[in-house]
Amino acid sequence: MPKFNPAVETLAAPPIPTVFSWGKSYDGRSGPMIDLSQAVPGYPAHPEMLRLLGDYAANSAYTGYGPIEGDARLRQVYGAHVASVYGASLGAENVHVTAGCNQAFVCAAVTLAGAGDTVLMSNPYYFNQETSLAMLGIKVELTPCDPENGFLPDLAMLEAAITPKVRALALVSPNNPTGAVYPPELLSDIFDLCRARGIWLILDETYRDFMPEGVQRPHGLFQKPDWQQTLISLYSFSKSFCIPGHRLGAITAGPAVVEQVAKVMDNVQICPPRSAQAAVADALPLLAEWREKNRMEIVQRAAALQETLEGLNGWSIGAVGAYFAFVRHPFADRTSSEVAEGLARKAGILCLPGSYFGPGQERYLRFAFANANSETIRLLRDRVQRFDDPS
Amino acid sequence: MPKFNPAVETLAAPPIPTVFSWGKSYDGRSGPMIDLSQAVPGYPAHPEMLRLLGDYAANSAYTGYGPIEGDARLRQVYGAHVASVYGASLGAENVHVTAGCNQAFVCAAVTLAGAGDTVLMSNPYYFNQETSLAMLGIKVELTPCDPENGFLPDLAMLEAAITPKVRALALVSPNNPTGAVYPPELLSDIFDLCRARGIWLILDETYRDFMPEGVQRPHGLFQKPDWQQTLISLYSFSKSFCIPGHRLGAITAGPAVVEQVAKVMDNVQICPPRSAQAAVADALPLLAEWREKNRMEIVQRAAALQETLEGLNGWSIGAVGAYFAFVRHPFADRTSSEVAEGLARKAGILCLPGSYFGPGQERYLRFAFANANSETIRLLRDRVQRFDDPS
Ligand SMILES: Cc1ncc(COP(=O)(O)O)c(C=O)c1O
Ligand SMILES: Cc1ncc(COP(=O)(O)O)c(C=O)c1O
Repeated sequence: MPKFNPAVETLAAPPIPTVFSWGKSYDGRSGPMIDLSQAVPGYPAHPEMLRLLGDYAANSAYTGYGPIEGDARLRQVYGAHVASVYGASLGAENVHVTAGCNQAFVCAAVTLAGAGDTVLMSNPYYFNQETSLAMLGIKVELTPCDPENGFLPDLAMLEAAITPKVRALALVSPNNPTGAVYPPELLSDIFDLCRARGIWLILDETYRDFMPEGVQRPHGLFQKPDWQQTLISLYSFSKSFCIPGHRLGAITAGPAVVEQVAKVMDNVQICPPRSAQAAVADALPLLAEWREKNRMEIVQRAAALQETLEGLNGWSIGAVGAYFAFVRHPFADRTSSEVAEGLARKAGILCLPGSYFGPGQERYLRFAFANANSETIRLLRDRVQRFDDPS
Repeated sequence: MPKFNPAVETLAAPPIPTVFSWGKSYDGRSGPMIDLSQAVPGYPAHPEMLRLLGDYAANSAYTGYGPIEGDARLRQVYGAHVASVYGASLGAENVHVTAGCNQAFVCAAVTLAGAGDTVLMSNPYYFNQETSLAMLGIKVELTPCDPENGFLPDLAMLEAAITPKVRALALVSPNNPTGAVYPPELLSDIFDLCRARGIWLILDETYRDFMPEGVQRPHGLFQKPDWQQTLISLYSFSKSFCIPGHRLGAITAGPAVVEQVAKVMDNVQICPPRSAQAAVADALPLLAEWREKNRMEIVQRAAALQETLEGLNGWSIGAVGAYFAFVRHPFADRTSSEVAEGLARKAGILCLPGSYFGPGQERYLRFAFANANSETIRLLRDRVQRFDDPS
């Protein structure tokens, strides 16, 4: 057989299916499996969302190819939405619709960096960002996030890591896997650093609709007069609208970036799925209240998780927010995979090992708590307490 | 502003929007614009297809993420379909569903080749294959197709072009842009050559449901016992089901290839759109007759085009079949872009310049005749005849 691209062949198998396979050997002894593995909302899409998706999908006006950058109406509606969320002035020309936020990242990466270039990320990182860069032959440099400081990136360390080969810094806030919500001031400083050093800042904001109480806006970067020279913001409609299967996301950036991204997107998928774009353009204003209700629900789940794990022998929460908690386990002589596999097989808890998110994260597990309601989350206490041997 | 990836920045803007813009300055003097630019079916999707798309899109069972490789049911149904089309024994494990055939190509390319490797293509080529490779830093080598031989690739030339850096040969049959249908014996020889030289054969068969009369099956490659070591076949549901806006395609290959492609697809888009997969799984057997009727209709349109251009002063058909004709124009001192722009502005005919499909194709234009019915196609004669000055 001819060779494969070694950059692909050496990638680990996608993590989620592996974790699901652990779950299959759980014997049910502690009750139904509690699935905190994948970042999917634990509640269904709104009935009106489903109606819109169905109506537009059955409509022959949406069977054809559409504009590469996305349908004009969604670009306009989403641009206005972003403008209002961030108190900034931007519009349709700043929006490139994508088939999900993973695709947004891949296309942004290709647009900015070629094989041999370097992209800087934090450790821990969202694994698909790392594997996306690796498969493209783009080098990844990591800067550690300090567990003692809620897993926030450290400005001085970032500064030291920006060598001449670095083309972009890729961050995620609210963070996957830690849940950490990066404060606006920190993001402002990071933006200023990137601008000063002439590199792009790719900011994945997939979870920005799930902010804790009291946050007025995720950050003020879009208000900076020259933001288009530095910032590329990514978003996903998967989580906020509970429609990951319909594959929609967006890039918000300057028109010059949008123009380059469109060349990449033309190759990768010609246009985003049409009918879902029309449905989301309607749903964005329509379901604003429903999304706010969900935000409050997720905030409560985060609180439930904190209570549940509080004072549990040897367990602690490294960071928590939006969809995720990065939980420290007590088994110092075990890998995070061993602990996660043990939790799946013996305690009926499905979560991801810290090691999936970067080297040196063996003491941590990612709990995607948004997946379960508060009642289910409270069941964790008993299961975790009795879990004393991962093997 | 920080730099872009030069491999992207130097790509030309996507061609279709440019051509549309020429059309906008047509004054209508010869009647309504005849659009032969984009390869889209000129008839609508079947009402049952729309019903299925609508029903599944409104169904909450399809809002979640699905398997990376595609939903089990579509993989199974499509695998069985391919097995029957080619008289071969293969199944679900050979299928990776994608969000369209462009994405199938990009993911296959990343799977097989990294920056600095070479992929061999024919000249003329399908432009998105060329731009996809270029943006990835993969080098492209071209072997000419002989206009005197219906634009078929030449085995000896291919053989000579397979240097040690070549990882794959990428071909399209039925061909875009020429329409040439590669004979099964030629494809068999090409396959044997690739196998002998240890390179992959990527065969884009987007138009295989639009074969001329009398073709029993597109080729016999899937019947070769070791096909999985060499062949990667690509397909699109866009044309056959008239649903490009729903973004579905497929890769057919050995399970070892599928396993590598899944790593790439996990990054590029996590899973293909869910509800459209369910709809197509139903439609594939249901609409078999309708697709056969469309095939016959397209065959008639090809015949209409041949009649229409026959004996027209200085014009001739280089190749024709499936969706396309590669038409030779009489203006030896003009670029194909000048001629195509002139046809758009003055004759109300929208087509693509040969130069979009490779160097040295200035004497040709691509007519995507599937776009127009036979009656409309016949209107071309008069418009082409009167068109004597591209400027
Ligand atoms: C940080 C982050 N970015 C992107 C994605 C991908 O989202 P999408 O479904 O829009 O591709 C996810 C999904 O889990 C995510 O956690
Ligand atoms: C040869 C060829 N391959 C692939 C494609 C892309 O098809 P899809 O809509 O499935 O991405 C086209 C579309 O025109 C094509 O002509």
